[in-house]
Amino acid sequence: MNALELLRAHPQAGGRAEEAMARCIDECHRCAAACTACADACLAEEQARQLALCIRLDLDCADICIATARVALRLTGVDDALLKRMLETCAIACELCAAECRQHDHEHCRLCAERCERCAERCREAGQGLLV
Amino acid sequence: MNALELLRAHPQAGGRAEEAMARCIDECHRCAAACTACADACLAEEQARQLALCIRLDLDCADICIATARVALRLTGVDDALLKRMLETCAIACELCAAECRQHDHEHCRLCAERCERCAERCREAGQGLLV
Amino acid sequence: MNALELLRAHPQAGGRAEEAMARCIDECHRCAAACTACADACLAEEQARQLALCIRLDLDCADICIATARVALRLTGVDDALLKRMLETCAIACELCAAECRQHDHEHCRLCAERCERCAERCREAGQGLLV
Amino acid sequence: MNALELLRAHPQAGGRAEEAMARCIDECHRCAAACTACADACLAEEQARQLALCIRLDLDCADICIATARVALRLTGVDDALLKRMLETCAIACELCAAECRQHDHEHCRLCAERCERCAERCREAGQGLLV
Repeated sequence: MNALELLRAHPQAGGRAEEAMARCIDECHRCAAACTACADACLAEEQARQLALCIRLDLDCADICIATARVALRLTGVDDALLKRMLETCAIACELCAAECRQHDHEHCRLCAERCERCAERCREAGQGLLV
Repeated sequence: MNALELLRAHPQAGGRAEEAMARCIDECHRCAAACTACADACLAEEQARQLALCIRLDLDCADICIATARVALRLTGVDDALLKRMLETCAIACELCAAECRQHDHEHCRLCAERCERCAERCREAGQGLLV
Repeated sequence: MNALELLRAHPQAGGRAEEAMARCIDECHRCAAACTACADACLAEEQARQLALCIRLDLDCADICIATARVALRLTGVDDALLKRMLETCAIACELCAAECRQHDHEHCRLCAERCERCAERCREAGQGLLV
Repeated sequence: MNALELLRAHPQAGGRAEEAMARCIDECHRCAAACTACADACLAEEQARQLALCIRLDLDCADICIATARVALRLTGVDDALLKRMLETCAIACELCAAECRQHDHEHCRLCAERCERCAERCREAGQGLLV
C-alpha cells in the first residue's frame, strides 16, 4: 500500500519512526480485509456453527485494525500514549484471532491467520518505536 | 438507547455485569456522535486553525468509541481480556478529548466534553465489572 | 439520543430540516447497535448455519448505518447530493435486513427488524427533506 | 493488497467478476488511508480554515470507502443490488473529494486526489460487472 508516502506528506512528518508505523498501518488494512473476508467465508461453510468463535474474533479484529490504522495515520498534535495503547490492544486482538484461525483448515482461515500474525508483529514493532 | 435489551436477547446473556456494560455501550454511541459533530463544527469555526488538536482528538475518540461499542456488544465466546483492554483505551481517548474540548468556549465543545467525560466513566465502570 | 442538540450547536445550523435529520441519525446509531448484537446472537444460536444470510445482512446494515450517521452529522460545506444518496442506500440496507430478520423467531431478530424498519423510514423521511 | 486471494478463498467464490471487484476493494482501502491522512495533514497546515471543505469531504470519503470495501468483501447470500448502490455512492464521494483536493497544492491533497480518482473508476468498473 502507501502509508509511508502519506505520512511523509504531512506538515509534521519526521517526528516518529515513520517506516515502522507505515508498515503497521498498511498491515492493519490488509488484516482488516482478511478478517472481514474470513468472517464471511466462515458463515458460508457447512460447519458455520463450529466457526462461531472464529467469526466473532474476526469481526473484533477487523474493527480494531481499522480504528488503529486511523489513529496511526494522524500526526496532528501527536499523542503517542494513546496510539501506543491502541497498538497494544490491536496486537492482542490479532493474536487472539490468529490463534483461533490456526485451529481450522480452511484456506480463508489460513490466509487470515497469516495476516493477523504479521499485523500483531507490526503493531508491536511500531509501538516500541514510540517515545512514551 | 437500547443496549440492555440487546444484550439480554443474546443466547449467552447473563454472564457479565450487563447493566454497566449496556450503559457503557449506549454512552459510546452518544460520545461518537458528539465527537463527530464537534470535529465538523470546529472545522466551520473562524478559528479552525486553533482547533486542530480538538478536531484530531474528536476523530480518534469517535473511531475508538465505535470500535469499543462493537466489541462490547458481542458476547459469543466472550473474551473479556480484550474487551477490558479496549475499554481502558477508550477511556483514555475520551479523557484526552474531554480535556481539550474543555479549553474551548463553543457549545459543541461543551457538549462533546460532557459526553466524553461520561463515556470515560462508563468505560471504567464496565471494565471493573469484568472478571479478568 | 442527542443528535438534535449536536446539529443545533454547529456554526452552520439551520439550513436543513434538522429535526428529521436528527431523528434519522439517532436511529442509525440504534439500528447499528441492534444489527451488531443480532449478528453476534445469531452466531451463538444452535442453527447458526441457517442464519448465515441474516448475519451477513446485519453486518452490512451496521456498517452502512454508522457511515450514514457520520456523513449526516457533518454540516460543513454541506453536500446534500451525496447525503441523499447515502440515505437511500442505508434505507435499502435496512429494508433487506428487516425482511430477513422477520423470517426468524429469535428475540434479537425481532428487535433488529423493528429497528431496521424504523431506521429505513427515518432515512427516507430525512432524504425527502433535502433540497436536491 | 490481497483482496483477490480473499475472494477466491470463499466457499461461494466464482459468481462475480472477481478481478474487478478485488481491484475495487483494494483501492477502497488505499483511498480511505489517503483521505484519513489528507484530512489530518490539512488540519496541520497554516491555512486549515480554507481547507475545511477538503477535510470534510476527506472524512466522508474515508467512511464510505471503508463501508463499501466491507460490503464488497462479503459474498454470503450475495445481494448485488445493495452492493451496486453502495459502489455508486462511493464513486460519487470519491469524485467530490478528488475535485476539492485538486484545488489545493499540498502534496497530501495531490496524493489523495489521485487515489480518489482511481477509486471512483474502480467502483464504477466493479459496479458495471454486477448482474443487476
